[in-house]
Amino acid sequence: MNRLLEDLRIVEFSAFVAAPLGGMMMAQLGAEVIRIDPIGGAIDFARWPVTDSGASLYWAGLNKAKRSVALALDKPEGRELARAIAAAPGPGTGIVLTNLPPLAGLDYQSLKGVRDDIILLRLIGNRDGTAAVDYTVNAASGFPLVTGQSGTAGGAPVNHVLPAWDIAAGLYLAAALLAAERHRSRTGMGQEVIAALSDVMLAMVGHLGYIGDVHINGRARPAIGNDLYGSFGRDFATADGRRVMIIALTPRQWRALGRATGLADKLAMVGAMMEVDLESESGRFEARDAIAALLARWCAGKTLVEIAAAFAGTGVLWGPFQDFVGLVREDPRASPANPLFAEIEQPGIGRYPMPGLPLDFSAAPRQPTRPAPRLGEHTDMILAQVLGLPAAEIGRLHDTGIAAGPDGR
Amino acid sequence: MNRLLEDLRIVEFSAFVAAPLGGMMMAQLGAEVIRIDPIGGAIDFARWPVTDSGASLYWAGLNKAKRSVALALDKPEGRELARAIAAAPGPGTGIVLTNLPPLAGLDYQSLKGVRDDIILLRLIGNRDGTAAVDYTVNAASGFPLVTGQSGTAGGAPVNHVLPAWDIAAGLYLAAALLAAERHRSRTGMGQEVIAALSDVMLAMVGHLGYIGDVHINGRARPAIGNDLYGSFGRDFATADGRRVMIIALTPRQWRALGRATGLADKLAMVGAMMEVDLESESGRFEARDAIAALLARWCAGKTLVEIAAAFAGTGVLWGPFQDFVGLVREDPRASPANPLFAEIEQPGIGRYPMPGLPLDFSAAPRQPTRPAPRLGEHTDMILAQVLGLPAAEIGRLHDTGIAAGPDGR
Repeated sequence: MNRLLEDLRIVEFSAFVAAPLGGMMMAQLGAEVIRIDPIGGAIDFARWPVTDSGASLYWAGLNKAKRSVALALDKPEGRELARAIAAAPGPGTGIVLTNLPPLAGLDYQSLKGVRDDIILLRLIGNRDGTAAVDYTVNAASGFPLVTGQSGTAGGAPVNHVLPAWDIAAGLYLAAALLAAERHRSRTGMGQEVIAALSDVMLAMVGHLGYIGDVHINGRARPAIGNDLYGSFGRDFATADGRRVMIIALTPRQWRALGRATGLADKLAMVGAMMEVDLESESGRFEARDAIAALLARWCAGKTLVEIAAAFAGTGVLWGPFQDFVGLVREDPRASPANPLFAEIEQPGIGRYPMPGLPLDFSAAPRQPTRPAPRLGEHTDMILAQVLGLPAAEIGRLHDTGIAAGPDGR
Repeated sequence: MNRLLEDLRIVEFSAFVAAPLGGMMMAQLGAEVIRIDPIGGAIDFARWPVTDSGASLYWAGLNKAKRSVALALDKPEGRELARAIAAAPGPGTGIVLTNLPPLAGLDYQSLKGVRDDIILLRLIGNRDGTAAVDYTVNAASGFPLVTGQSGTAGGAPVNHVLPAWDIAAGLYLAAALLAAERHRSRTGMGQEVIAALSDVMLAMVGHLGYIGDVHINGRARPAIGNDLYGSFGRDFATADGRRVMIIALTPRQWRALGRATGLADKLAMVGAMMEVDLESESGRFEARDAIAALLARWCAGKTLVEIAAAFAGTGVLWGPFQDFVGLVREDPRASPANPLFAEIEQPGIGRYPMPGLPLDFSAAPRQPTRPAPRLGEHTDMILAQVLGLPAAEIGRLHDTGIAAGPDGR
């Protein structure tokens, strides 16, 4: 959290990862981010992981520091209120972020009808309007068929578990929001910005060279398990049943690895034996099985602690594998010892370390991380402050089921 | 490409994915992005995939639309020129993006000594200054131990192939750049912005709820292969040897799946048999093996084309798996039929479809995608235009090996 964008207000209609993440980045940069949800919550309100009482750790994680307004978006009056909040006048306001199909009255033209300089940022599935989500986009990307061991997987796809395309899309939208707001502050013009999730994937496959590889070379990279493509990197088992990733991307890292393991002379024999220059990335890639044979034996004779001691301060690029439990319980980087984290009381869930923004701005000191709101926590506040509704009118909206607070009514 | 940021100039000292991607996003938004490399290229200049002649498709992919300056960064005079370009006066300039350890004279204090309002955005490995790359950060994230089939992988980690943490870090930096430039345009103040790659990972693990899961629930999600966690989604083999991902996140998608497959009655039996409510995500997750048994048989009796026909227009959320070759040769979304792509002549490589920005700005029409520069292509132009050096002085810099053009000299 910091206060860098505290003069901005963003209204979010969202679910799942992408738009909530983009909006949360803005909130953690100090913007007022108002997520407007249907009464009872959107489709992601109970998304796993959940607590034993069913509260979503996922929803809490992706909506930190936002304000929550709950309205009957299935009724015209609810949608009118949502539109009025989204298009309310004022500098730094009139910015809408969504990854949901537009509801009647909440599309770009309708919003622009209320406020000419509205900025609407919208994530869609495919460019042609058909549905796509992280899982289907990933299936089309080519990556699942080169993930995992080519030998053992038998050509079956392996999905990555991280929703990487959603994450990229959300961060693209955050940058796009700032670019569009910059443009508006200079020209007075709003605009609609559209990103297709499948385009985010396609752009990245192209950026990383895989489209060119097929077009120019007529080939595609194979599945090579955990090996690093085009240089040296592989995972190894330790004497105490752990696994480590060892990498040599640069000549300096390669020489450090030879020194730290005492294997420099034997590794030199690999170069001669395989007739490759191990100072080059492609040489190390070609000789990777022979290199790994030496390193595997070395690692198998040492515990993780012994390997860490052998590599400390040597310039070797390496790291242990750990599971989520190990990350949380044993890695100090995942605790409030790291300024990224603060231990926060999350209503309905409890107290645990929640991350702020993974960015340190020297001109905008870190503020305490704020928890996610309870659903509808800010309904009355926003109706009063943004729309100027009197208390009696807000009461009527609750009575008629158009607005709801944190008690769901 | 568009012209939204054409009044900005960003100087990049970078390698690999993160900073080059962030810089390229700015370049594709119209900013002048000057990547300054050592003569002969940085550590990523020959990164795989490469062509048969050794030209890097990866480097070309991540440096499109930039300008390239090659200087002897190992010599004080080369570094002085680099600093002068980075800190040159003017509105919209004085922004530096890097993921390399700072060279002497190119750290924040030195740059600020030349230009007080400099903005420096810097990606580091770990917050404490120790090295970390996508592979080591990923090993620590917990994700490799829940990727792939829990049964067959025997607890061995499976790395995802997409450099997802680098991608996220690069996009965070792009948004941070715009936030810092916004702050400077309002206050006149520059700043240093630091992101640690491990913090990007840690923030995301927390945002997705996995840190809370361990803290609050005392457990971590298991490896469940390609199954979707907490709802229904799995991959299935078709009669013609292809695989498809089928998902039902919403009740609407679930009902559509029952209708389109003709299995609605049998799926209802699954609900009764397993005693779960299949209208709920957690009910479908609990009954996923029984649901999958029905769907597996249905898919195994149909070709991919027959499945596509059965699902067309039904609201079923699904997609086929394809490899990189299939993506490039058979998916029209990866061709110039998609405005994201333009067929570009990349010097030293050839002609192939290269992606622009996966964002459509209604107020900033798409411009033609531009290829990556040849290394050093803009050395003379930048020395003349930005530093105002006369031709004789530029000639001297070439003669003394301080500057180089695309011929490497």
